[in-house]
Amino acid sequence: MRILFQTADPANQDAWLRDLRTALPHAGIRVWQSGDTAAADYAIVWKPPAEMLQGRPELKAVFNLGAGVDAILKLNVVPDTLPLIRIDDGGMAVQVAEFATHAVLRYYRRLDQYERQARSNGGEWKPLPPFERSGFGIGVLGLGVLGQRICESLQHFGFEVSGWSRSPKTLPGVKAYAGSAQLNEFLRNARVLICMLPLTPDTAGILNRDTLSQLPRGAYLINLARGGHLVEADLPPLLESGQIAGATLDVFQEEPLPPHHPFWKDPRIAITPHISALTVRSEAARQIAEKIAALQRGEAVVGLVDRNKGY
Amino acid sequence: MRILFQTADPANQDAWLRDLRTALPHAGIRVWQSGDTAAADYAIVWKPPAEMLQGRPELKAVFNLGAGVDAILKLNVVPDTLPLIRIDDGGMAVQVAEFATHAVLRYYRRLDQYERQARSNGGEWKPLPPFERSGFGIGVLGLGVLGQRICESLQHFGFEVSGWSRSPKTLPGVKAYAGSAQLNEFLRNARVLICMLPLTPDTAGILNRDTLSQLPRGAYLINLARGGHLVEADLPPLLESGQIAGATLDVFQEEPLPPHHPFWKDPRIAITPHISALTVRSEAARQIAEKIAALQRGEAVVGLVDRNKGY
Repeated sequence: MRILFQTADPANQDAWLRDLRTALPHAGIRVWQSGDTAAADYAIVWKPPAEMLQGRPELKAVFNLGAGVDAILKLNVVPDTLPLIRIDDGGMAVQVAEFATHAVLRYYRRLDQYERQARSNGGEWKPLPPFERSGFGIGVLGLGVLGQRICESLQHFGFEVSGWSRSPKTLPGVKAYAGSAQLNEFLRNARVLICMLPLTPDTAGILNRDTLSQLPRGAYLINLARGGHLVEADLPPLLESGQIAGATLDVFQEEPLPPHHPFWKDPRIAITPHISALTVRSEAARQIAEKIAALQRGEAVVGLVDRNKGY
Repeated sequence: MRILFQTADPANQDAWLRDLRTALPHAGIRVWQSGDTAAADYAIVWKPPAEMLQGRPELKAVFNLGAGVDAILKLNVVPDTLPLIRIDDGGMAVQVAEFATHAVLRYYRRLDQYERQARSNGGEWKPLPPFERSGFGIGVLGLGVLGQRICESLQHFGFEVSGWSRSPKTLPGVKAYAGSAQLNEFLRNARVLICMLPLTPDTAGILNRDTLSQLPRGAYLINLARGGHLVEADLPPLLESGQIAGATLDVFQEEPLPPHHPFWKDPRIAITPHISALTVRSEAARQIAEKIAALQRGEAVVGLVDRNKGY
C-alpha cells in the first residue's frame, strides 16, 4: 500500500511520519514533494497545495488531519467521487469540551473580573453577586462529535443546554433546534453562545450584528470553530452597547491575528492562538489505520465528508 | 417551634429570614440580639458570638450555615451532647467543582499564559506545547461531600484523580490514600494538589514546606478550604525555586487579605475573595427544614459534627 503524506506544519512532519508508520507498519509512506506524481493509494493531508492532489485517478481516499475541511474543499481538486474523510475526533472532543467549559465557568463565576480586581490598585478584595443559574442557558451552534461533547460537559455542571444544527438531532437533555426557521428562537435563549459549526457557504458570517442581536442582552460569545463564522467588524459596536458582554475567541479571519487588530486591545475579548483542540498524533494515526482497513474491507467509515453539505 | 437565627453577615439577614420562613412556615423564627435569653428549640447560626449559645439547656440542635465548623468549635460553647449540624452542601458541591475544574483547566491548558501573552507587548500569538495528560495526576486532600464532587468533575475530563482522607474511603475510579502514613506517597503523584480538608488541629498548616516539597517539581496548588491550612510564609520560596509553579488561593490566614500582603503582587498566584462556594440560601433553608423534621421524628441526620474528629 502506497501512502502520500503532506502537512502544512513542517515542524511536526517527522513526528507525524513516526506515528503513521507505527500505526501502519506495512504501508509505504512517503512525504509528498513538489513534482512527485508517482501513484499512491491514499493521501493523508493537512492544508495541501492543489498540485499534490491533481490528476491522481488511482487514489482511493484522502484523509484530512482535522475536523474542518473548508480549506481543502476550497481547492476544488478532490473529485466528488473520491472519498474525503475527516479526522473528527483524534482526541479533540475532550479538548474542546475543556476549553469551552473553562470559558463558560470563567464568565459565569466572574473569575475574569476577580482577576482584574486582584491585579488593580495593588489588589482589591470584593466579592461580587453571583449570576443566577436559572437564567443562564447555554446554546451550542453545531452538534457534531465536538459540539455534543461540549453539551455533555456543561450538563455535568447542571447548566441548561440547547443546541442548533442544520438538520434535527436528538441529544439527551439538550433542547434541540434545527434549520434557519428555528435559529432566532434558539438564539433568544442563549445567555452564552458557543460556535462549533463547520465553515460552509451557509455558515460563513453566521455570527453577525443581526444574529448576535437576537441573544439576550449581556450575552457572552465563544467561537472555537473558524474565524470565517464571525463578521469581526460587527463585534466592537455590540460590546460597546452592552448587547455582548464579552467574548472568548480562538479563531480569526486572519491567523495569526495581525498585530494591530483592535481585538488585542479589548480586555473583554479573551484571545488564544487557535489551540482549543490540537490533533493528538498517535490517536489520529490509529484512527486513519482503522479507517483504511475498513475501506479495504468495503465497509463504511465515520467522518466521510458530504460534498452537498460541505462537511 | 421557636427558632433563634443569627448571621455574621448583616447585609443578608433579611434575605435569610425570608427563605427560612418560607421553608419553615409554622416556626416562630426570631433574630437573636444581645441580651435575648428567651428559650428556643433550634439555633441557626453563622459565626455566632459565644454569648448567644451560652446557658441554653432547652436547645435541641444548632445548625451551622456552612460546611466549615472550625469557627464555632473554637468558641467552646456548644456542649458535646448538643447536636451541631453542618450544611454540607446547600448547593455548594457543584460550585466548588466548578471553581476547582476552572483552576485545573486554566493551568493544564496554559490559559493563564495565553492571557499574559495576549496582554503583553500589544498581543503575542504563540501556541505553547501542551502538557501530557498521562503525567498530570490530580490529588484531592479531603474526600467529604465537596471533595468527592471535585473528583467526579475532574474524572469527567479524563484526569487521573487520587484522594487522601483521614480514614480510608472508596470512591469509583479514585486512587485513595488514608492517614498520615500514606500522605507522602499521595503527594508524590499529585501534579496538582487541591485542598478541601476541614480545618482541625490535625490539619492546620498541612500545606507547608515539607509537604509541598513532596509534590512533583513544578506542581500547582489550589486551596479552597481554609487559610489556616497553608503556612503562607512557606509558599514564596517554593515558587522562587520552581518547586511550585503557581497557585489558586480562595482562602487566607487573614481575610480580607491585607493590602500589602506579598501574594497580591505575585502573578503566579490567582487570588479570589473566598467565593469558591457560597451557600445557596433557599437550598440551605430547605435542608434545615428537612433536618429539623427528621430530628423531630427521632431520625439520624447527615452533617452531624463528630466532636472527636472536629468536623
